[in-house]
Amino acid sequence: MVGGGDPFFQPVSAMDLPRFAGVPTFMRLPHLTPDHDRYGDVQMGLVGVPWDGGTTNRAGARHGPRQLRDYSSMIRAMNAATGVNPFASVNCADLGDVPPNPIDIQDSLNRIAEFYTDLKNNGIVPMTAGGDHLSSLPILRALASDGPVGLIQFDSHTDLFDSYFGGNKFTHGTPFRRAIEEGLVDPKRFVQIGIRGTAYNIEDVEWGIEQGVRIIRIEELLDRGIPDVMREARQILGNQPTYCTYDIDFVDPTYAPGTGTPEIGGPTSFQAQQVIRELAGLNLIGADLVEVSPPFDQGGGTAWLGISLMFELMCVLSQALVARG
Amino acid sequence: MVGGGDPFFQPVSAMDLPRFAGVPTFMRLPHLTPDHDRYGDVQMGLVGVPWDGGTTNRAGARHGPRQLRDYSSMIRAMNAATGVNPFASVNCADLGDVPPNPIDIQDSLNRIAEFYTDLKNNGIVPMTAGGDHLSSLPILRALASDGPVGLIQFDSHTDLFDSYFGGNKFTHGTPFRRAIEEGLVDPKRFVQIGIRGTAYNIEDVEWGIEQGVRIIRIEELLDRGIPDVMREARQILGNQPTYCTYDIDFVDPTYAPGTGTPEIGGPTSFQAQQVIRELAGLNLIGADLVEVSPPFDQGGGTAWLGISLMFELMCVLSQALVARG
Amino acid sequence: MVGGGDPFFQPVSAMDLPRFAGVPTFMRLPHLTPDHDRYGDVQMGLVGVPWDGGTTNRAGARHGPRQLRDYSSMIRAMNAATGVNPFASVNCADLGDVPPNPIDIQDSLNRIAEFYTDLKNNGIVPMTAGGDHLSSLPILRALASDGPVGLIQFDSHTDLFDSYFGGNKFTHGTPFRRAIEEGLVDPKRFVQIGIRGTAYNIEDVEWGIEQGVRIIRIEELLDRGIPDVMREARQILGNQPTYCTYDIDFVDPTYAPGTGTPEIGGPTSFQAQQVIRELAGLNLIGADLVEVSPPFDQGGGTAWLGISLMFELMCVLSQALVARG
Amino acid sequence: MVGGGDPFFQPVSAMDLPRFAGVPTFMRLPHLTPDHDRYGDVQMGLVGVPWDGGTTNRAGARHGPRQLRDYSSMIRAMNAATGVNPFASVNCADLGDVPPNPIDIQDSLNRIAEFYTDLKNNGIVPMTAGGDHLSSLPILRALASDGPVGLIQFDSHTDLFDSYFGGNKFTHGTPFRRAIEEGLVDPKRFVQIGIRGTAYNIEDVEWGIEQGVRIIRIEELLDRGIPDVMREARQILGNQPTYCTYDIDFVDPTYAPGTGTPEIGGPTSFQAQQVIRELAGLNLIGADLVEVSPPFDQGGGTAWLGISLMFELMCVLSQALVARG
Amino acid sequence: MVGGGDPFFQPVSAMDLPRFAGVPTFMRLPHLTPDHDRYGDVQMGLVGVPWDGGTTNRAGARHGPRQLRDYSSMIRAMNAATGVNPFASVNCADLGDVPPNPIDIQDSLNRIAEFYTDLKNNGIVPMTAGGDHLSSLPILRALASDGPVGLIQFDSHTDLFDSYFGGNKFTHGTPFRRAIEEGLVDPKRFVQIGIRGTAYNIEDVEWGIEQGVRIIRIEELLDRGIPDVMREARQILGNQPTYCTYDIDFVDPTYAPGTGTPEIGGPTSFQAQQVIRELAGLNLIGADLVEVSPPFDQGGGTAWLGISLMFELMCVLSQALVARG
Amino acid sequence: MVGGGDPFFQPVSAMDLPRFAGVPTFMRLPHLTPDHDRYGDVQMGLVGVPWDGGTTNRAGARHGPRQLRDYSSMIRAMNAATGVNPFASVNCADLGDVPPNPIDIQDSLNRIAEFYTDLKNNGIVPMTAGGDHLSSLPILRALASDGPVGLIQFDSHTDLFDSYFGGNKFTHGTPFRRAIEEGLVDPKRFVQIGIRGTAYNIEDVEWGIEQGVRIIRIEELLDRGIPDVMREARQILGNQPTYCTYDIDFVDPTYAPGTGTPEIGGPTSFQAQQVIRELAGLNLIGADLVEVSPPFDQGGGTAWLGISLMFELMCVLSQALVARG
Repeated sequence: MVGGGDPFFQPVSAMDLPRFAGVPTFMRLPHLTPDHDRYGDVQMGLVGVPWDGGTTNRAGARHGPRQLRDYSSMIRAMNAATGVNPFASVNCADLGDVPPNPIDIQDSLNRIAEFYTDLKNNGIVPMTAGGDHLSSLPILRALASDGPVGLIQFDSHTDLFDSYFGGNKFTHGTPFRRAIEEGLVDPKRFVQIGIRGTAYNIEDVEWGIEQGVRIIRIEELLDRGIPDVMREARQILGNQPTYCTYDIDFVDPTYAPGTGTPEIGGPTSFQAQQVIRELAGLNLIGADLVEVSPPFDQGGGTAWLGISLMFELMCVLSQALVARG
Repeated sequence: MVGGGDPFFQPVSAMDLPRFAGVPTFMRLPHLTPDHDRYGDVQMGLVGVPWDGGTTNRAGARHGPRQLRDYSSMIRAMNAATGVNPFASVNCADLGDVPPNPIDIQDSLNRIAEFYTDLKNNGIVPMTAGGDHLSSLPILRALASDGPVGLIQFDSHTDLFDSYFGGNKFTHGTPFRRAIEEGLVDPKRFVQIGIRGTAYNIEDVEWGIEQGVRIIRIEELLDRGIPDVMREARQILGNQPTYCTYDIDFVDPTYAPGTGTPEIGGPTSFQAQQVIRELAGLNLIGADLVEVSPPFDQGGGTAWLGISLMFELMCVLSQALVARG
Repeated sequence: MVGGGDPFFQPVSAMDLPRFAGVPTFMRLPHLTPDHDRYGDVQMGLVGVPWDGGTTNRAGARHGPRQLRDYSSMIRAMNAATGVNPFASVNCADLGDVPPNPIDIQDSLNRIAEFYTDLKNNGIVPMTAGGDHLSSLPILRALASDGPVGLIQFDSHTDLFDSYFGGNKFTHGTPFRRAIEEGLVDPKRFVQIGIRGTAYNIEDVEWGIEQGVRIIRIEELLDRGIPDVMREARQILGNQPTYCTYDIDFVDPTYAPGTGTPEIGGPTSFQAQQVIRELAGLNLIGADLVEVSPPFDQGGGTAWLGISLMFELMCVLSQALVARG
Repeated sequence: MVGGGDPFFQPVSAMDLPRFAGVPTFMRLPHLTPDHDRYGDVQMGLVGVPWDGGTTNRAGARHGPRQLRDYSSMIRAMNAATGVNPFASVNCADLGDVPPNPIDIQDSLNRIAEFYTDLKNNGIVPMTAGGDHLSSLPILRALASDGPVGLIQFDSHTDLFDSYFGGNKFTHGTPFRRAIEEGLVDPKRFVQIGIRGTAYNIEDVEWGIEQGVRIIRIEELLDRGIPDVMREARQILGNQPTYCTYDIDFVDPTYAPGTGTPEIGGPTSFQAQQVIRELAGLNLIGADLVEVSPPFDQGGGTAWLGISLMFELMCVLSQALVARG
Repeated sequence: MVGGGDPFFQPVSAMDLPRFAGVPTFMRLPHLTPDHDRYGDVQMGLVGVPWDGGTTNRAGARHGPRQLRDYSSMIRAMNAATGVNPFASVNCADLGDVPPNPIDIQDSLNRIAEFYTDLKNNGIVPMTAGGDHLSSLPILRALASDGPVGLIQFDSHTDLFDSYFGGNKFTHGTPFRRAIEEGLVDPKRFVQIGIRGTAYNIEDVEWGIEQGVRIIRIEELLDRGIPDVMREARQILGNQPTYCTYDIDFVDPTYAPGTGTPEIGGPTSFQAQQVIRELAGLNLIGADLVEVSPPFDQGGGTAWLGISLMFELMCVLSQALVARG
Repeated sequence: MVGGGDPFFQPVSAMDLPRFAGVPTFMRLPHLTPDHDRYGDVQMGLVGVPWDGGTTNRAGARHGPRQLRDYSSMIRAMNAATGVNPFASVNCADLGDVPPNPIDIQDSLNRIAEFYTDLKNNGIVPMTAGGDHLSSLPILRALASDGPVGLIQFDSHTDLFDSYFGGNKFTHGTPFRRAIEEGLVDPKRFVQIGIRGTAYNIEDVEWGIEQGVRIIRIEELLDRGIPDVMREARQILGNQPTYCTYDIDFVDPTYAPGTGTPEIGGPTSFQAQQVIRELAGLNLIGADLVEVSPPFDQGGGTAWLGISLMFELMCVLSQALVARG
């Protein structure tokens, strides 16, 4: 059952404490650990995955959750464009960061999967702040333990490569190949939007298409327009449980310089919001916003964009929660 | 009577002094104080209001006029898009900064109102570089001393809130509520364009609508297009005296990161210019460009955008001056 | 009675959670509010005062506590130079930020004084992260409610001016004049170290000397050497209760660019540590580290220096707590 | 005859050496000097012109080639949007930088012309990274030694002025006036796209139109759309040899802050790519990407955009090479 | 005759206008051009030379005067360390910038020499903000028109090279070779302090020593100490007219990153002040502070250091003016 | 036998190509791979190790070699302080970067060891640019394959810890524990200088002392002075083969902000040079300069300091090479 407006789970108001003040939790929400007596009432959990162990080029996404929390102080409670106030209908809380092992990939994958398995067992819908894109794999291992889920991915890269640098199977360029292979994602209910950039080859795209993944390049997105493309995406994804993964490099790097593998020619911040608002109505079971890399974001604009998009994701997640009742 | 081309009031040419050289006055214009013997010939006065006493979150707009003057060296004399050369038809001068009191809001409000009352008494049309948005209130107190004026506001926030943090009535979130209450602005001739961002609540919007303010959100602006929306705005504003206030946070924060309260999903710089060019024909009695905050503008791009927009405002202001004869 | 090594009050170890992870409390300590059941066991409280209402030039110190918390993740538990581990002998906790009113100076002064009065009533020794230097005044109002205390001030300015800009008595240039006038500080037990920079006049210095304040300029400090000067300071301060206020602008602005009123020709970071270590043995009742202004600290170096010095202050504060038993 | 896929001329793969590693040549290609035994097999030469001797305002383009090489490590081999892999059909190499004389303009013009004359004599098509826009003049002197060529220019300025500051004929505002006067460019086959910004006067535009240059302002480009405008451009340029010069200030300065003379209101990065892709089919004999100025590009975004556009230019250049057989 | 305290020539007080406000002239002094009726009363003229035409590596010093003026707002009237208030005894004014020709070295040298000849003819002692070090040559041509002067140079380079890059005689590495050859500087009364850094060869040093120049490397300065070295310098310079040239790269590049040719291992800011204070008693006829290059000074610290040192130079210059009566 | 002055192995002169031009190899030296016909003549090889796989906190040192090469253009040929010109007596070349595996620590360790074994087999003395400090372990595995060597380490951390985060033995905090355990370093001929910073515990120090390592904290270094401490170090190290490892975090973080684990209170750049010059006379067989992390070095100052120190290391290495004959 979905709650609503529990005072304990409301963000601290700027009328009580200015936005630049206070210990920065996500969205100024209470920070809970599993031993807290209100933990059982959490419905949506905001979680950081401060890890970039899968990064093959420019690292730094390990610092993402910290900076996203910092900028989240400037988010207010209500989405004035859509009328949704996630805090009014769902109990949200900051559940802290998963403790990764910065020098051991497999150990980190296990730690993350374990953390999200606990969330799932507690009925908490996860809203994740990455971390590099490999983070999505262990999250899916936890959430899709009962069977493959649908996946909607906003990204400039497919992340469908097989391996890297001598056969390494676990990098931020391979998570969704693994996810399909492991039966975590149903490739027939998998849509990728925004793909672009120079390429080593098109092995990733060919493999994806073979599996049934619908890959929509940026040219198609901008040519057909967001409403039309998203209508198709919703049809593919249907009513079944669907996860949303949002790589900040989907957005043009002028808007989101703070990321490891930027590709020019991407959407604006307005379009970046629009695609999320078009997810309304999907049966979302979780979402992540990944690849925000503060060392490459001198002015903080990527973090501000990222947390603003994370708020949009929270809005559609909360709608799905309410819809499931 | 409007002049034209007085050599004294021309910007220093880059052919005489390179753009990076010289004491940086606004647009390389002469810097006059009231005791100067040409003061009486000034028709448009460029004024800085280096003040952010009304800022509730991230301060810094006090440094705006300084940085805008610096970047104004790169502005040349003619608007090649519209054919307007404001310096050829109107005597423009840099009238310096209003001296605010950085630690006393009411004292500052009085100092600003007094400065602009003097301008009005001298028949000088003010083009202001803020400062935070509370600066517009004392300017309106001076300009609207004879009765309410029309107002066209470009902004991502309504600034129509009632109070802040324990009932404080004078912040950069409240100036236009005060202006309506004080009879400075006719709410029936008040248009707001670009509103967006997360919200505490919609009390501001509801109050505004009740008064008759026309509030146009960003979605409507981008959906209908600028020409159509601006046509409506001009109809609402009519031929009566109208003031224009332009908050730099109207523009997307990727284009204008140097501001205290950015909201993603805004217009581009091209659109930011377009809306001003669509003001041609209005009976403008003054304008301001506010909320440029250099400490959050590491690369200086916001200042460059801001001063470029201020030049566009000067062009339509000079057209109005010429039209009034 | 002083505790020691309570596991609840230990910083989160980097062996459990990497330094870049987690919600950033001061020194990775537990974040407690008065309603927490362990609140009564806190002996040293780390408190932020995110306020720069007294700043007459470049604002930004309101953002200081946020950034200091962020960088505090890199502090480990033990002072290898002095052998002190404050967490091993004293229960330390992050008590959050005082909620200031960013647009009302008197209201803010009252809120701060009230917060620290509560701390004093609970027997908690405060270690404060400012905020501008006016923050020290309400802290002293709380701590010196029973009678004047001694004061050791590291600073490049005396902050002993009478008023500013039309007679305003409460700015970050005047707190210690007020503190002496209000009987909060015993001027005979007041030492200022590091004074330098250009001056409006020497009215502040003359007034201070008249009251009995010992003012040690930077030239004297560097000429005599830190051990000799600090020996004199300890003699002046004696065994009576003493407060320490440390303005980050004491340090050379190359080391500490992130501050509003920098003055060149200051000490190095090593010397900045040394002067604190020489406070060992004093009867310290609290300390603050003020004027860290993140908007002027692009690389974060000032915050790192500031929190490193705050750790040194915690070490000597904890020694004083242990000495008092 | 055009080759294809010579292993010697392939970029180093990220599978062998990570992108952040290695001595940064353009596109990770081999760096050859004329004495190398494979020099004779080069078909497209990537050349830097580290020179800003013609810059009248903000210098720094001398550092452009260095930073563009650095960011070129992130370019992969294939243009996934158009399917072109320039390295698969044409032998490409980094031929180093022309040695300019930073304090002698005429000496530098001669050195550059000489360098490109050698390239032409060796049948190497040049892809240049500037340098300021005056660099294009000596390149054209070399390439158009047999008669005037067509020119397609993306820019926010016409660079058609006559002289500067006391009659100096050689600045980055005058190269194409000189090129027409010297018979290097056929003004009837000269298209300029993207012109905007404030103007000293319109003498440049008027002179250009008189010669027959087709000048397309930004408003026309955005109003008609890129495909339509580029269709006209291709008709004007026809099948004859055509050079392409791309000033990074064509792009909006939010996307390309790192340049000396930015003008707001320009195209996005997607549009910046589109115009190049529309050059397919032209008989291109060389191209340059100029005015990238690293000192004004703190985050490196301009370099990343610039090198991404340079890759697009390489794609259409390689297509032209293949078409010529 | 030296004046004193003329109200017209006092800096604007921060009690009247906050430091961040107003058109930024040097030290908030009146900005005068030769046609002003108080021009004849100026005794010390602050002049900018926004020119880097002699720079062989990283340009940017052309922007120095602009940024130095900006930061000069934070300088107050009195040197608290030495008790000197230059504004109290000498009429100081900002005389604007020399208009250089950014693309013609010889024209610029002539323009500068002419500007300073006018100053000399008006009996105005020049305090210059550069510009690169070649700026000192035309200044010396003006000031030493009657015969060679003494020279005290703080620098990490000798600037005594003969030529550069194909025999160019006029670069920022050669001014003092030219000055000796032209009879502007008496090599027997020429002291260089702070020399360091890697070297092409030692031809410059050998030539200098042959002429009689006293070259003091950084190792000698730090080993003997500033008082001892400066005592020797004063003995060499004697009572005859002496010019002081201060290259900001004398100071360690951590303190002064904003310069084109930094050399590590230099003095601190305190030492940078000390050497100037030790000039007291010399018969100074002018001074310059050169090579501040804002594009390499992201945080502004070099400008703040530079203007602080320029104030120290004004103090000793004013003492010399008073001493001459 | 040591060569001298081979023209092939000289840096490109700034008289031929300005310092900002050209493909940036280390020190503008020729870039050779083993297949080059002059490879056999190389005596000192400059090598990059672009790897930070052992970094437990803030990554980024993988980008070190790239940025160090960039800044090395500003190094000239001769050490004017010591009179050493390494290029005049030893054949130096840039041997490129070791290709690390960014997502596999053991694979990377093997690749590095293999690369350096090849160097050793070719009689090439390695001068390495890191990379994090774990890079030194595989280098020592190669160089000390015949028996333990002496080690002089400049650092703020001992890097003698046993393990991290669940028993991981290979991080940048453990290399020298491993090196002693593996018999690569003779602990009796191992000196550490500059140790400071907060500590988890003192297990590292205690273990080191037990083995016989001489650990000199920063307080001792600054108290006794560099000459005295270095005399002791040279006595401990004696005439036997000695390796030098220099962590940039030895230097104060104001001078070297671009590093992952900064500790305040360190030496100046002058002192950072001095300690290297005091290595003259040691039997050095190689050196590294590690932990330069460009993402945390916005202004580039750390790279400039780092490459300047690397040049100093080259000087003493070349002296050792000459001494060995």
